[in-house]
Amino acid sequence: MNRFSIILGNLGNTCDRFLSSGYKDQPSKETMIRQASQIPGVKGVELVGTWDVTPQNVDEMGGLLAKYGLSCASIIPDHFSQKRWGRGAFTSKDPGIRAQALEETLAAAELARKLRCPLVNLWPGQDGYDYPLQADYRAERRWIVEAVTRAARAFPDIRFSLEYKPKEPRTHCFLARAADTHLVVREVGLPNVGVTIDTGHALVAGENMAESAVLLSDHGAKLFHLHFNDNYRSWDDDMIVGSVHLVEFVELWFWLKELGYQGWYSMDQYPYREDGQGALRASVEFLTSIDEILDDAARAELRAIIGRGDPIESTAWIRGKLFRR
Amino acid sequence: MNRFSIILGNLGNTCDRFLSSGYKDQPSKETMIRQASQIPGVKGVELVGTWDVTPQNVDEMGGLLAKYGLSCASIIPDHFSQKRWGRGAFTSKDPGIRAQALEETLAAAELARKLRCPLVNLWPGQDGYDYPLQADYRAERRWIVEAVTRAARAFPDIRFSLEYKPKEPRTHCFLARAADTHLVVREVGLPNVGVTIDTGHALVAGENMAESAVLLSDHGAKLFHLHFNDNYRSWDDDMIVGSVHLVEFVELWFWLKELGYQGWYSMDQYPYREDGQGALRASVEFLTSIDEILDDAARAELRAIIGRGDPIESTAWIRGKLFRR
Amino acid sequence: MNRFSIILGNLGNTCDRFLSSGYKDQPSKETMIRQASQIPGVKGVELVGTWDVTPQNVDEMGGLLAKYGLSCASIIPDHFSQKRWGRGAFTSKDPGIRAQALEETLAAAELARKLRCPLVNLWPGQDGYDYPLQADYRAERRWIVEAVTRAARAFPDIRFSLEYKPKEPRTHCFLARAADTHLVVREVGLPNVGVTIDTGHALVAGENMAESAVLLSDHGAKLFHLHFNDNYRSWDDDMIVGSVHLVEFVELWFWLKELGYQGWYSMDQYPYREDGQGALRASVEFLTSIDEILDDAARAELRAIIGRGDPIESTAWIRGKLFRR
Amino acid sequence: MNRFSIILGNLGNTCDRFLSSGYKDQPSKETMIRQASQIPGVKGVELVGTWDVTPQNVDEMGGLLAKYGLSCASIIPDHFSQKRWGRGAFTSKDPGIRAQALEETLAAAELARKLRCPLVNLWPGQDGYDYPLQADYRAERRWIVEAVTRAARAFPDIRFSLEYKPKEPRTHCFLARAADTHLVVREVGLPNVGVTIDTGHALVAGENMAESAVLLSDHGAKLFHLHFNDNYRSWDDDMIVGSVHLVEFVELWFWLKELGYQGWYSMDQYPYREDGQGALRASVEFLTSIDEILDDAARAELRAIIGRGDPIESTAWIRGKLFRR
Repeated sequence: MNRFSIILGNLGNTCDRFLSSGYKDQPSKETMIRQASQIPGVKGVELVGTWDVTPQNVDEMGGLLAKYGLSCASIIPDHFSQKRWGRGAFTSKDPGIRAQALEETLAAAELARKLRCPLVNLWPGQDGYDYPLQADYRAERRWIVEAVTRAARAFPDIRFSLEYKPKEPRTHCFLARAADTHLVVREVGLPNVGVTIDTGHALVAGENMAESAVLLSDHGAKLFHLHFNDNYRSWDDDMIVGSVHLVEFVELWFWLKELGYQGWYSMDQYPYREDGQGALRASVEFLTSIDEILDDAARAELRAIIGRGDPIESTAWIRGKLFRR
Repeated sequence: MNRFSIILGNLGNTCDRFLSSGYKDQPSKETMIRQASQIPGVKGVELVGTWDVTPQNVDEMGGLLAKYGLSCASIIPDHFSQKRWGRGAFTSKDPGIRAQALEETLAAAELARKLRCPLVNLWPGQDGYDYPLQADYRAERRWIVEAVTRAARAFPDIRFSLEYKPKEPRTHCFLARAADTHLVVREVGLPNVGVTIDTGHALVAGENMAESAVLLSDHGAKLFHLHFNDNYRSWDDDMIVGSVHLVEFVELWFWLKELGYQGWYSMDQYPYREDGQGALRASVEFLTSIDEILDDAARAELRAIIGRGDPIESTAWIRGKLFRR
Repeated sequence: MNRFSIILGNLGNTCDRFLSSGYKDQPSKETMIRQASQIPGVKGVELVGTWDVTPQNVDEMGGLLAKYGLSCASIIPDHFSQKRWGRGAFTSKDPGIRAQALEETLAAAELARKLRCPLVNLWPGQDGYDYPLQADYRAERRWIVEAVTRAARAFPDIRFSLEYKPKEPRTHCFLARAADTHLVVREVGLPNVGVTIDTGHALVAGENMAESAVLLSDHGAKLFHLHFNDNYRSWDDDMIVGSVHLVEFVELWFWLKELGYQGWYSMDQYPYREDGQGALRASVEFLTSIDEILDDAARAELRAIIGRGDPIESTAWIRGKLFRR
Repeated sequence: MNRFSIILGNLGNTCDRFLSSGYKDQPSKETMIRQASQIPGVKGVELVGTWDVTPQNVDEMGGLLAKYGLSCASIIPDHFSQKRWGRGAFTSKDPGIRAQALEETLAAAELARKLRCPLVNLWPGQDGYDYPLQADYRAERRWIVEAVTRAARAFPDIRFSLEYKPKEPRTHCFLARAADTHLVVREVGLPNVGVTIDTGHALVAGENMAESAVLLSDHGAKLFHLHFNDNYRSWDDDMIVGSVHLVEFVELWFWLKELGYQGWYSMDQYPYREDGQGALRASVEFLTSIDEILDDAARAELRAIIGRGDPIESTAWIRGKLFRR
């Protein structure tokens, strides 16, 4: 049974640096939650701190989720949308800001508990650097390990999942790739700390998404969460899943089944100019279509094909599924 | 005599999609103009429509420029920062929006005349597409040609310079590279229409900046304007010039001299987290340093080195200049 | 009626810089020609100078093609596989080499005439540069224009099609992108000079393949020839068509029909480790599958979808075709 | 005291897939060794199995190295240049080939012992995959760990250093990035297993070279070896060091000093069309120039600058060093 979710803000207004007031209008939270609940297959939402959920509105948000039959799949603390984080949150050169970044994490874990949400998704987007000769790579990575360790120790009932991304908003982020994030997780060494794969971030990192999923699972079941979107491989375009790539999503889905992945399949897009609900529904439908193809028989066939490793066979298999030839 | 200028907004607040309220505070226009005038070598500014200059404030802006001894190097009409342009300006599927995009261009040319500015820099950032099967490549490029033709005919005393960029804010922009923009200029076929090279956009396009300058000059003196910044080649990071690359800026500067380029050398950066004035000054100083190296004797040496085409010689030449060995 | 062809050498041994003796054994020419003829849909082959066809063996090759019922779709003169071209063919700093490059072109046109082949495909892979401060961009592009002009004037009955590629074997090639190659074609200004799109080269150039096809057709029917292969967008991996991308090949095929493209659909792959015939057949079958989808009704639907430009619609259309949902 | 070395084959003939017989002529081994010894600063060479050193010629090679006063800095076993490795060495689906890959490694360690060389550099270039749905990521990574473990246990006196590279000759290599290679090293868990950074491979991986060096050192002194070359960030162009980038090499050198790196600084280039000795000398001179800049005082300044993290300061510092302004 797949559990699809979406990041709530995907249904809202979206902006970029040239059109900072956004391409659309901002709907109410209830409108967005209702829209999420209307997408067939969607059972949960992810909430971003500051943008979606705060200590002030958490009860109201909990009520709305209940009203529309949705779970809270994760809380994403806000370590990126405020001026104070501009030069880093966990890795700010200012120890006061670093302390605040930890507080924000703990507060998010509290919100998660209140919403019976089992996972805090950490995306420390401002933790990185822009220029050569700017970062103290040694100290700053250590600060990330220390903060995550403290949060995870304080909330052993909550899973903390580190989302990597090679760049943006910094030209280089510290949690950049699956393997370096895995190294941080290993250093932390706690069972409730793992990794989120955002499929678009993996593509930008030059990774094969399925290989990254295996890497994280095979080194100790550390694939905690998944964000889905598509792009052209050079930037986090946050597009409809399957709008550019197809075969690699089939491969990813196959391996997630092989690995026994139990978490959410969460959509994370930026439909700047599209109807948000329509764009998210399109992604869920694409993945559902792939899921239908990958029944037990098909997976057995793929296992054998991978065992032989011949791309003539695998491309024929895909063609047979899609074109019935 | 080099004429440096800056894009005024580089001194202001800068935002991105995650921190839409911006990394800094917004100074007053006079503060920014004064700061620009304080950078040694800077003699002009470029003004962006909506952001910097409008029919309402144009006289005031003219007064401020005069007060601080600056020329207006270009007007950049706003074809990107308003919701109405979200799905294209010159290439909107809505003919009403296309008409407005032309009007905005004509209005910018009027502002240019008022400020005795000889150049309108057109950066139609929203004119492109995000997904496969979205754009009518045939019709939409034609609309650009038609609009530019009408503007250039209406203002024969103003130079219209098309700034290309491969992507952002769309995943694909129509004016994407030097050569395809040159094709548009050829179709327009008017003497007052040319091309702006933004060095960062050229790097993202996979171009060698100097080769692009030659391409535009050699096919009819169509290099009208230059924007300077640096990046890591995969995205328009808008960094301090020379912070990543060096040799290719030496080469570009050499060829600009060979080509007899007479336009402005304009800084176009996004110092998200840095002091704006300091970041712009750093770029001007870097380029001034290169200019000092490239005296007549040095250029004669480079001409000979290029004639032989041996990278061992050229790298030795650079080492000699920089390291005195 | 589609006409598929293959580059004959795709069926032979393939090497790279680490395994220069090649990943396979080299079959005889007759074996390769027979294998080509056995691929359903394939009606022609392209022959590479030196590798496949020379003045010495041209009659024999013509006999073999006749025996197996294949046309010669193009001759590709060898401007890349001999030491003498190492520092450029048409753009060598040595005028003697430049003269030889023209001679090689003329000789290829003679071979084409003998084989009743209407097209010479020029891929001047060594014409470019590796380092900054190495090329005389002005002179070297002019040399290309001059050589192509002389060849095209000497053989007005032969079409000369310039194949662009951004890099490899040089870090920068002069004929790098669709638009800059189009500029060369315009300067030559002869009806029998046009452009070849290699789909993989277009992807590496950051181009949308369909947009490039429109660009070349819309500016005067200059799309002369097509090479098909797939890759991961950063390098010319020369993979089975459709093994990575799908939607963009659907879009390209749609636009080729819109544009009334009449040339060959030629496979150009490097199946380093795969059975050559199987890899080429896989590509032809993939494109045939797309062709079957794109009947008159489907193209009318796509025309309307593109007219509206909504990616939610276009992705739904693709999903409907592939997954029957 | 820096110890420069070169990979011997850099002085020989160089080929690519289009010019498989190579751009130059192949000099004798003694010529290459003599040329290496003539480059000021070079004290060692790396020898590639099959190409440079075999059980048959090892004594002769030892004699030549002694004659010219050079050490053997590393042995690079040949896991890439023979047909048998074409579909993988350590990760071939054929267990017989996997056994041979281990044997080749053990044989290289024997050669290293004979030459009193302390390090075997493992670059399993063929161990990867080209297509989606081709590799069994789980099993194949495990095979690498097992083979490396067995070799390292068999030769506890030899250091085995794994060289990562994201792609080429496969579209995806298993040892792709610093961090994933570090994960392999951790799984092996032996003191004599570490990582080689090839600066060009790191650039292609999207890594900051200095950050990768810190990552490997900070997680347990696992930076064993360094290969130097430069490129344009998208492909392993193997160019003269400093021909494209400068600041990031300054930063890398600074951090190598901070980390107390004690290994060789080895040049690894492919001077396809250049004089090999000249191209290698150019790189050594470039790095020596950087080394001269980075004296104790300069490093103290950089430490302070990095502590503040302001790119305006760091770019001014670089400008001051290079341009004396």
